[in-house]
Amino acid sequence: MYQLYDYPTSGNGYKVALLLHQLDLSFRYLETDILAGEAQSPAFLARNPNGKIPVLITPEERVLSESNAILLYLAEGTPFLPTSREARFEVNQWLFWEQYSHEPYIATSRFWLHHPQSGSFQDKIAERRPGGLKALAMMENHLAKNDFMVGDGYSVADIALYAYTHKADEGGFALADYPAVSAWVARVAAQPRHITIEEKTNFTGT
Amino acid sequence: MYQLYDYPTSGNGYKVALLLHQLDLSFRYLETDILAGEAQSPAFLARNPNGKIPVLITPEERVLSESNAILLYLAEGTPFLPTSREARFEVNQWLFWEQYSHEPYIATSRFWLHHPQSGSFQDKIAERRPGGLKALAMMENHLAKNDFMVGDGYSVADIALYAYTHKADEGGFALADYPAVSAWVARVAAQPRHITIEEKTNFTGT
Repeated sequence: MYQLYDYPTSGNGYKVALLLHQLDLSFRYLETDILAGEAQSPAFLARNPNGKIPVLITPEERVLSESNAILLYLAEGTPFLPTSREARFEVNQWLFWEQYSHEPYIATSRFWLHHPQSGSFQDKIAERRPGGLKALAMMENHLAKNDFMVGDGYSVADIALYAYTHKADEGGFALADYPAVSAWVARVAAQPRHITIEEKTNFTGT
Repeated sequence: MYQLYDYPTSGNGYKVALLLHQLDLSFRYLETDILAGEAQSPAFLARNPNGKIPVLITPEERVLSESNAILLYLAEGTPFLPTSREARFEVNQWLFWEQYSHEPYIATSRFWLHHPQSGSFQDKIAERRPGGLKALAMMENHLAKNDFMVGDGYSVADIALYAYTHKADEGGFALADYPAVSAWVARVAAQPRHITIEEKTNFTGT
């Protein structure tokens, strides 16, 4: 069985839980309280020296970090990752774009608003706003012409972008302003074996 | 022939130029003055709506952005990308780590110090310093036990990390404090068909 070290509201951890569930791979959810410093403990740092969740332990005891790299690893050879060189490039392009040009704006704003105990970040939220608006506008343009992020089917590119986009309102970004993105959010949520971000913490069995 | 739209001091563009040269793929270097807004022009945004260099146009007229996705695309089927599922995961893990946990600290500090005309960023440079020190410490620990970033050979993981690491001094980070990283920098520079970041702009022929 897989073991997923994660924090409940994390979209990065949600990506991994969602794909595991859609691949019908059973996993155990292990809550890691990043606000209490649990990702900086010696035990955690031995697994991921970068001190970040999610960390996925495979049944073969491999220790994996970096959510989008984990998606590519799990999706290899499945319908969630296209096989042509061109489509794989597009998946990778969106995954790197998500980590550099989307997550630092949309996810980070949500984290600060969601966890006021982590400090007063009003200035930083304002600073990150233009980047978040730009990211959503890029997605809107793309999804106005395409049903999914890459090609004509659901892939890990959708999972990676869905994780924080569907909660953008919680970061102060009004998804209702982006009709194509909103329609895509509904399309992703309608995929077989979809689970919500809240449901990921249900998988605590052994 | 490939066409590479890039800015001379960009490490992200250098990654692509270095791999193209090492793969013996000829390319034309097209300088894009990002400080003069050339990456925000309608013509450029038609190629990359994200308004960032590098952009690579392939001989088949495919338009590629996101430097690390370009590395994976070009390296497919070559000795610069390992073939086992496990090693490919490690390459991807380092590539995503580079974009999220290394580049925003080390490259950004260098950009601000390198281009004082882009504004006064002393506060931001101080804010980014701990992240840069952490990234270099992680590389030092890894390279104290390994000659290369993944497995026992040179790969796109080395190219992606080398691009900004070898110029870390220009961002205020003293590479001399990291002996294993410094030895790896020399090892990468000694690879066949290596070109320096300055040499990438020489490829302006047609």
